[in-house]
Amino acid sequence: MVRRSGRRPGNQDTKQSILEAARTMFAEAGYDKASIRAIAAAAQVDPALVHHYFGTKEKLFLAAMNAPIDPAELIPKAMAGPREQAGERLVATVLGVWDSPAGSAAVALARSAMSNEWTARLMREFVVTQVLRRAIAALDIDEKEAPVRAALVATQIAGLLVVRYVLKVEPVASAPAERLVAAIGPTVQRYLVDELPGFLDG
Amino acid sequence: MVRRSGRRPGNQDTKQSILEAARTMFAEAGYDKASIRAIAAAAQVDPALVHHYFGTKEKLFLAAMNAPIDPAELIPKAMAGPREQAGERLVATVLGVWDSPAGSAAVALARSAMSNEWTARLMREFVVTQVLRRAIAALDIDEKEAPVRAALVATQIAGLLVVRYVLKVEPVASAPAERLVAAIGPTVQRYLVDELPGFLDG
Repeated sequence: MVRRSGRRPGNQDTKQSILEAARTMFAEAGYDKASIRAIAAAAQVDPALVHHYFGTKEKLFLAAMNAPIDPAELIPKAMAGPREQAGERLVATVLGVWDSPAGSAAVALARSAMSNEWTARLMREFVVTQVLRRAIAALDIDEKEAPVRAALVATQIAGLLVVRYVLKVEPVASAPAERLVAAIGPTVQRYLVDELPGFLDG
Repeated sequence: MVRRSGRRPGNQDTKQSILEAARTMFAEAGYDKASIRAIAAAAQVDPALVHHYFGTKEKLFLAAMNAPIDPAELIPKAMAGPREQAGERLVATVLGVWDSPAGSAAVALARSAMSNEWTARLMREFVVTQVLRRAIAALDIDEKEAPVRAALVATQIAGLLVVRYVLKVEPVASAPAERLVAAIGPTVQRYLVDELPGFLDG
């Protein structure tokens, strides 16, 4: 983190320092190991001030990522419902976000994650800890299987983003969301809950 | 394309002009519509010279992309074999390339495609015309269904690349290729040849 010398003119500057320290810490140590205390130390502020400005570690992470949505609200809602359609609901939720006005910010974030090692780490922490871990928790999946299932789901969801919004390959680029849900939902469903011989039995 | 004034010192400069013109043309007009004649005109050289240096339009495209592999050789080989395992063979072939020394060049190309609109268009043309179109042709798939199937395959393959090599989400990042083939092959198989109710029947 680059620190300026001299007096800070106000809160904005302090907040900015905290956000910069948080980005560095989340990228370097990972979400789980980064602590509010360490982030506060790096930003040279009191941990209480971090809590005051940003609330929880999770909220601080979302602020540091400029996340356009809050997965803590979105994912449990998406996962509620019959287990047999969890994959379809997850794809529908993700497309709902990306097709919305907030989506262009999410796509910009994803683009930058591809070209920059540091942003890629933040993005991985975001996807794994905020999105996939919640989806897996909501489905009550075996803890040992969860990382494999989450990473496989990530391959399909990340690829859908890349092909629809970045590479814009037709007909996926302009297909109505419900057709993509019908085609891709079963894949996500399989990764989430079905048997995965050759991966999970090995 | 930016042209320098004055005499060109030699062949390298002419080749470079042709490659620059080719990149512009393939990105702007797409692979199918870009012609050797138009590329030659943009580079201010005789079309015969383009053929002389690069051979076919396809070879010129691969040179313009700095493609580390030639899909014309690789894909038909990968598709040869029982139709029921085509998906697994395609995933195995793709992982074979990316896990090889040529793979880091391919990953660098993909990264740059994410962050740059113009490179993204070139990458889309490459994936669609050089990789997926060949895979589809080798499987003798209905022409009407081919674009949908190819784009769906692209979602899974692009996402595998992103998660394994760019975001590096574990355990996919360091899983042996054969486990990924077992887990992800059936998805690609479904997109290539299975029924796709809700997408293809609508």
